[in-house]
Amino acid sequence: MICNSTTALPLTAAYQAFLDQLTEAGLFIPQGVQGVYGFSGAFEDVLQAFDRFTMRRSAHIPSEPMHFPGVLSREVYLKTSHIENFPDLMGSVHSFVGREREHAGMLAKRQQGEEWTQDLSPSQLMLTPAGCYQLYPTATGTLTEQGRTVKLVSSVFRHEPSVDPCRMQVFRMREYVRIGTPDQALEHRRQWLALGKDILTELGLGVEVVLANDPFFGRGGRVMAASQKEQDLKHEFTIAVATSEKPTAIGSTNCHMDYFGKTFDIKTPDGATAHSACIGFGLERVTLALFKHHGLDPDHWPQEVKNALAL
Amino acid sequence: MICNSTTALPLTAAYQAFLDQLTEAGLFIPQGVQGVYGFSGAFEDVLQAFDRFTMRRSAHIPSEPMHFPGVLSREVYLKTSHIENFPDLMGSVHSFVGREREHAGMLAKRQQGEEWTQDLSPSQLMLTPAGCYQLYPTATGTLTEQGRTVKLVSSVFRHEPSVDPCRMQVFRMREYVRIGTPDQALEHRRQWLALGKDILTELGLGVEVVLANDPFFGRGGRVMAASQKEQDLKHEFTIAVATSEKPTAIGSTNCHMDYFGKTFDIKTPDGATAHSACIGFGLERVTLALFKHHGLDPDHWPQEVKNALAL
Repeated sequence: MICNSTTALPLTAAYQAFLDQLTEAGLFIPQGVQGVYGFSGAFEDVLQAFDRFTMRRSAHIPSEPMHFPGVLSREVYLKTSHIENFPDLMGSVHSFVGREREHAGMLAKRQQGEEWTQDLSPSQLMLTPAGCYQLYPTATGTLTEQGRTVKLVSSVFRHEPSVDPCRMQVFRMREYVRIGTPDQALEHRRQWLALGKDILTELGLGVEVVLANDPFFGRGGRVMAASQKEQDLKHEFTIAVATSEKPTAIGSTNCHMDYFGKTFDIKTPDGATAHSACIGFGLERVTLALFKHHGLDPDHWPQEVKNALAL
Repeated sequence: MICNSTTALPLTAAYQAFLDQLTEAGLFIPQGVQGVYGFSGAFEDVLQAFDRFTMRRSAHIPSEPMHFPGVLSREVYLKTSHIENFPDLMGSVHSFVGREREHAGMLAKRQQGEEWTQDLSPSQLMLTPAGCYQLYPTATGTLTEQGRTVKLVSSVFRHEPSVDPCRMQVFRMREYVRIGTPDQALEHRRQWLALGKDILTELGLGVEVVLANDPFFGRGGRVMAASQKEQDLKHEFTIAVATSEKPTAIGSTNCHMDYFGKTFDIKTPDGATAHSACIGFGLERVTLALFKHHGLDPDHWPQEVKNALAL
């Protein structure tokens, strides 16, 4: 079954139509909240196959593999500037730490339609805004000459409920991260700008590489966005998914300069602050792009794509 | 490298010693919060291999595969009795929904050492206490004669920071869930009590099956725990991991009777409320048990275990 064209509809209608197709095909399992879905085995198999494909295509780049749980120490979170620049995206985890009396009080509040969550306390944890936030604090100290090259996967959270199936509140990020000298970081970005595009193109996804910026909050945010663009720090691999009106970024490369090195006191052997760069693939987004472009039934995908993914 | 024996130490010391071994071996990557760790590729490979092994060993049981994101609609959460019975374990996700003025106010609070999280609002999401909470709301309605058999995996959250490496705040659960008539649910539990033990035993994990209860909160909780035991609803697969003083439950079977069927209005074809049952494997816990019992280097594990896991 091919995917009925949604590309000509107005934006919201196109998103809803694509979401409906995914749900009717059983690929998405609604969870009653925008941007939160369960996935069928068929969807998940493609997602995992793509993830393994990126690792096969980058096997020539030695790296340390890691898996992170998707929650971040609040203390680590507050060392970064995320609360300043992206407050609208954060997820703070709150828990109940009272005893039976406080419990009864909280249940009574809820019973009376009052805000029972006021009786919760902030836990030691935030939901992580990006996978690599969980890596940098573990690299505090002085690097070797080779620096660090890490491949990691993590769930991440962004508080941006949307009808766009590509814009989920919880999603998985596969990242390849470099921490080292400025040249090592830039070389990593250069390498992955090419390799990322090759990987996606090999799967029949004709992405365009575009200069981009992060969604900095507020009026000051526009200045930061412009500065990020001027400095050529972020590029996105974009492709039409639900609609060609607004292509979706299914991956990005990011130069952090010395931001994480400074924040987490990571130094190169010469004593300078380390630089870092990463590529991130939005695993669900790439999977959605594959289903959109090749059809809702992987059995009928082009043979070369199936071969590449070892499907 | 075999795992130095920690089984004779006092409890907390045994936990800390095992945690230290895992960290020194690079299997665990500390994240600055008790019960939250990154995992090395070696650890993650075993975890995924075990997960796939459970699926190979249960391939004779037709089931629908699903992946869930680990967050639960708050509305769905509040339909259950979790807030009454396990309030101390919950994770509520809070976000910032203000504009620039509120943002400035929140940053000022933080600057002045005040509780800035008071400026956050509860989102539509909780962290899920168990994987199958995400499934039942999608089954509302009348089942077919065959009912539903689902295999799912999900991150789950339990607010119980601990030095015990086996007691993590975020962990992954592989579940096999049955929704149907009382007999179908009981048969599922019977089948998995045997198959779960076989699966673990085949990997050299000599688990003991013990009657157990959930950690119900408060004084009333003791009555609920006793009742759950009396009704023979929960069994755990237990084995010594950090210490033989207190064996760890690395999986469990659970009969829910009509609890989820009633909560989410799931009916069998005769109009009665559906019953459900599940087996859950704690994926990190099983992995830890494997490293503890076979040693910290999988290359040196018994050949039959490596073969079974296709390592």
